[in-house]
Amino acid sequence: MNKDIAELHIVMYQSGKAFTEYRKTSPEQKANFLETIASNIEGLGDSLIAKAAEETHLPVARLTGERGRTTMQLRMFAQMLREGSWVQASVDTAIPDKTPAKPDIRKMLYPLGPVVVFGASNFPFAYSTAGGDTASALAAGCTVVVKAHPAHLQTSCMVAEAITQAIRSSEMPEHIFQHVTHTDFESGKILVQHPATAAVGFTGSYSGGRALYDYAAARKNPIPVFSEMGSINPVILLPDTLQHNAESIAKQYAGSITLGMGQFCTNPGLLIAIEAEGLHHFIEKLGNEIAAVAPAQMLHPGIHKAYFTKMQLALAEKGVDLLSQSTVLPTGIEAQPAIAITKAANFLQNPLLQEEVFGPYSLLVTCKDKEELIAVWTSVTGQLTTTLMGTDSDFTDFSSLLDIAPSIAGRILINGVPTGVEVCPSMVHGGPFPASTDSRFTAVGIEAVKRWVRPVAYQNFPDALLPEALKNGNPLHIWRMINNEWTKD
Amino acid sequence: MNKDIAELHIVMYQSGKAFTEYRKTSPEQKANFLETIASNIEGLGDSLIAKAAEETHLPVARLTGERGRTTMQLRMFAQMLREGSWVQASVDTAIPDKTPAKPDIRKMLYPLGPVVVFGASNFPFAYSTAGGDTASALAAGCTVVVKAHPAHLQTSCMVAEAITQAIRSSEMPEHIFQHVTHTDFESGKILVQHPATAAVGFTGSYSGGRALYDYAAARKNPIPVFSEMGSINPVILLPDTLQHNAESIAKQYAGSITLGMGQFCTNPGLLIAIEAEGLHHFIEKLGNEIAAVAPAQMLHPGIHKAYFTKMQLALAEKGVDLLSQSTVLPTGIEAQPAIAITKAANFLQNPLLQEEVFGPYSLLVTCKDKEELIAVWTSVTGQLTTTLMGTDSDFTDFSSLLDIAPSIAGRILINGVPTGVEVCPSMVHGGPFPASTDSRFTAVGIEAVKRWVRPVAYQNFPDALLPEALKNGNPLHIWRMINNEWTKD
Repeated sequence: MNKDIAELHIVMYQSGKAFTEYRKTSPEQKANFLETIASNIEGLGDSLIAKAAEETHLPVARLTGERGRTTMQLRMFAQMLREGSWVQASVDTAIPDKTPAKPDIRKMLYPLGPVVVFGASNFPFAYSTAGGDTASALAAGCTVVVKAHPAHLQTSCMVAEAITQAIRSSEMPEHIFQHVTHTDFESGKILVQHPATAAVGFTGSYSGGRALYDYAAARKNPIPVFSEMGSINPVILLPDTLQHNAESIAKQYAGSITLGMGQFCTNPGLLIAIEAEGLHHFIEKLGNEIAAVAPAQMLHPGIHKAYFTKMQLALAEKGVDLLSQSTVLPTGIEAQPAIAITKAANFLQNPLLQEEVFGPYSLLVTCKDKEELIAVWTSVTGQLTTTLMGTDSDFTDFSSLLDIAPSIAGRILINGVPTGVEVCPSMVHGGPFPASTDSRFTAVGIEAVKRWVRPVAYQNFPDALLPEALKNGNPLHIWRMINNEWTKD
Repeated sequence: MNKDIAELHIVMYQSGKAFTEYRKTSPEQKANFLETIASNIEGLGDSLIAKAAEETHLPVARLTGERGRTTMQLRMFAQMLREGSWVQASVDTAIPDKTPAKPDIRKMLYPLGPVVVFGASNFPFAYSTAGGDTASALAAGCTVVVKAHPAHLQTSCMVAEAITQAIRSSEMPEHIFQHVTHTDFESGKILVQHPATAAVGFTGSYSGGRALYDYAAARKNPIPVFSEMGSINPVILLPDTLQHNAESIAKQYAGSITLGMGQFCTNPGLLIAIEAEGLHHFIEKLGNEIAAVAPAQMLHPGIHKAYFTKMQLALAEKGVDLLSQSTVLPTGIEAQPAIAITKAANFLQNPLLQEEVFGPYSLLVTCKDKEELIAVWTSVTGQLTTTLMGTDSDFTDFSSLLDIAPSIAGRILINGVPTGVEVCPSMVHGGPFPASTDSRFTAVGIEAVKRWVRPVAYQNFPDALLPEALKNGNPLHIWRMINNEWTKD
């Protein structure tokens, strides 16, 4: 065994050992710990933003916003821990004179164990080292091993140090968070297949996410993997709204398609519309808007190369035409925003056109009628989002779309843009495969914690031996389900 | 393609088509449908019980009880649908003057699609054709295809007909439930890998459950599989309770080990104790109790053969001795109850001794001290249950066991027997692999519905276009989370 492999084994062994200590800490201790991480990240000040800007080429304003989102998420999970109802405590008291006698049974959620988190290239803060996966796993009571994304390694190390400092000052068990910086492919496999690993979180490409899923499924004891692998986020543009709002929709979507140079998993990569008067006007306006967006640097050379190559391949496909592109020529690793157009018949015959082109690109598919529109929409694989743009009259004429939409995606929007993922309890960031490897969970919002826990039932326990959340007196004052009734008593 | 394969493809295609109709039915319609199934099963009267007794060799009293459990489960899910809060509706209202503006986002659970259910040999009613998997999937809004267990094919056909009648009389869409009776191995693979299949439920052996999991993971789009694959359900017998209660515990456990000829996945197959005065007394008493239990017929010749072979293999291992067996010799497919004994050192060195011997058999492992006891206990793979038998004084001396227990199993018992799985909201029937393929869910109780649903978010929807559960006026009068507060308003 070479030194690197041995090191990964030691890391996972330590994570497993730390888990047996971390699970004994109180919700209040964990909440303080998460808040201390947030404060420490803020304490890094401008130097953290400067390093991230240098490594990712993202604008300072965007990075400052993303840091705010990251610390907000940490504090949100701290608040969840203090409020306490998230453990879904449930109590069914005994009925001794039932035949057979019904025993006392109680239930609550319990952490899975060590979680391996793979940092995302496009979110150096919010979905990397101290991002949503790490915050939700630590809140659940799991220990975490983060594999840094090589595209922002130094940023990752700075955040990791902020977490390590928080472990020390909060007097938390050593090794509840560990950071590995191996850049080789094999190390990911070793981490996912290590016996101590209990679950995996990943945000990135289809090929990466699928590989991790396959490693986990091939284990002697398969473990849950939540890979969030992106989407083309189909948008339906209905006729009446195009007739009346072509200009504003073109403006709104040119903004969404090119936001952050299209480097969001919720980027609208597929627009679907029926050929009609309003569509021609929309095409003209969207073309003008896209032409006016200046190129900007992408995250790293690999992503830039993939964008350029994939867009050229898409444009080379039969029946696909370039509708418009930025009039300014890109330099270095800048992306040139572009819109392509094709007919439904081409799209339906060519699965290559469904592939995500990660960057400021979108394909407009024109359809003869409602049937073609539905055929195009339902031909796509599972999505994170799908959007319906329409007037009241459109939704009367196309009411069946509302019935179909939940089968397409984890989040359905009406008259909005899919970019911008609000962090709130009702958010769903996930969807049918390949949007994510397990559509039953979300990667964003408070409910993201559910990926890392399992229910445990306690039968016939004396009150003194029960966990706090399940004791008769409800010492934590949390909402519980008692004999089928929600109560705080 | 041969005729059988073609037939399975048509069945799954029909299930997918029926799903698009079934998801439009109201909770009330689904509740009535489930209740009609329950009534129809009861309407089959003694003929159903007689057929099941003939096919499974289970006693009439047990089958009558199991039928009651089955119809109770169907009615429990009907009640869940009428009460309505199970959809976990959540509403986060818009904050337009936030920067950036926070949109209105709402969320609820939505059915995955067609579910394939594999009937269990040991529960011809409660975990077969109209059992817990079928009832929970239909309640979720999923369509169901049941693959009948060949060991009780005619019973399965009778129950399937009761469901088909309920579809007709409730005017439900055709094909929302279908029953296939193919007995070959290949047909299971075809069903799991069919593009229309969205999830799988299975109760049975490790080899069967693991195979289905692997088929699903190998799909182009992997789907969730909930395989419940049994356990050896370790029981810790602590010294003080053995000192004082050896006789009653021996009686209680002889009953649990031989209940239903040990053909329960919660059968206590492993007893762990520290060598001490009370243990010798317990061994003598347990031996006497087991010797007095008469052999009885097992479910089918395959299970009988496996029991006989696996027990002989276990007894042939080094350091394993027969402690006691029924003094009556078995005939035909009868099982002879038996208890074996070995030392911790043998158990720890021999993973074969961890393998489930499905039937009225248990292995008692004797340990030198607390360290050996913990080593034996934590060496086992994931379990459905684990039980601690002890006095107050034991739990003071062995308090660390309570901290370890949740990592071992999905259900922890104190001073009870694991057989007898109460159907209630706090029940957890599932556990770390290989107890089940996804420890985050339970197969028993109301929460079993969660296996077949995923959350869907609705962003910026006009009230009129929202599902009933998410409308402003709360027309279904259900508990919802509104801006972080539980309310029925």
